[in-house]
Amino acid sequence: MDALRRLQATLHAEIPISKDIGISAGDYDNGCLVLHAPLAPNINHKDTAFAGSLNAVATLAGWSLLWLVLDEAALSAKIVIQDSTIEYLHPVTGDFTAQCYLPSSDELTRFLNILRKKSRARLQLQATIAADEHMAVRFSGRYVAHLAAPAAPSQP
Amino acid sequence: MDALRRLQATLHAEIPISKDIGISAGDYDNGCLVLHAPLAPNINHKDTAFAGSLNAVATLAGWSLLWLVLDEAALSAKIVIQDSTIEYLHPVTGDFTAQCYLPSSDELTRFLNILRKKSRARLQLQATIAADEHMAVRFSGRYVAHLAAPAAPSQP
Repeated sequence: MDALRRLQATLHAEIPISKDIGISAGDYDNGCLVLHAPLAPNINHKDTAFAGSLNAVATLAGWSLLWLVLDEAALSAKIVIQDSTIEYLHPVTGDFTAQCYLPSSDELTRFLNILRKKSRARLQLQATIAADEHMAVRFSGRYVAHLAAPAAPSQP
Repeated sequence: MDALRRLQATLHAEIPISKDIGISAGDYDNGCLVLHAPLAPNINHKDTAFAGSLNAVATLAGWSLLWLVLDEAALSAKIVIQDSTIEYLHPVTGDFTAQCYLPSSDELTRFLNILRKKSRARLQLQATIAADEHMAVRFSGRYVAHLAAPAAPSQP
């Protein structure tokens, strides 16, 4: 199974609400991850996407990009979000896509080195949500990865 | 029906996902609105509440407080969130409550005056989420209220 399919299975299994809001992993190319979400389960009274759903999809875009980075680096880690800011720039009136971008390679290398050395490292990630050719949402989140403790050696 | 029951009916009718995440209006006293949410529909792989759900509940706490303010002032307005910041301070391992606080009475009077005069006004609101006697989430959101246009006079 390729990384994107494993990511989507992980999202749906580990964060059940990601299935309820209809997230699917779209593409991961040139350092940009794309997640798709339908309007229908996320709609509000103004026939636009509910801000809480947009935030959830942006938060998961960052989480997912970091999951892919750690998967490529063959590191097993727990990922949590520490804080975020979000701007709702335009109403979202249809299905939408979130894009999350890799940081510079220097920043990424530094993050992975700290994680390997200290078992814990932070990374700031930017995401946007586009709809109807507008940038509808601008998001920035700070994530923390904690290396999983190595499994205890099995008893003889 | 009292204001809190009307608020809850409005939330569930106008923002369907608020029903899926189990939000109920708890109390509104001394300028503080309390919303409750159960862990079960909001759980993630670490048996804690998903950050996106915590953000959604905090966002709705601000939206709901502003709805109550406008209801008390007998103003009919559309409420949207413009931007927000959130800090996830502690994992939430059980059912949780969001509290949102009225700003100072000067700030509130100023907001209502601008809204009546310009049909549009902004208000910054703070919310927290508590769980297990910890402050688990600190949230600040900027909301915009737009007065509903008066209904067109009916044709004779």
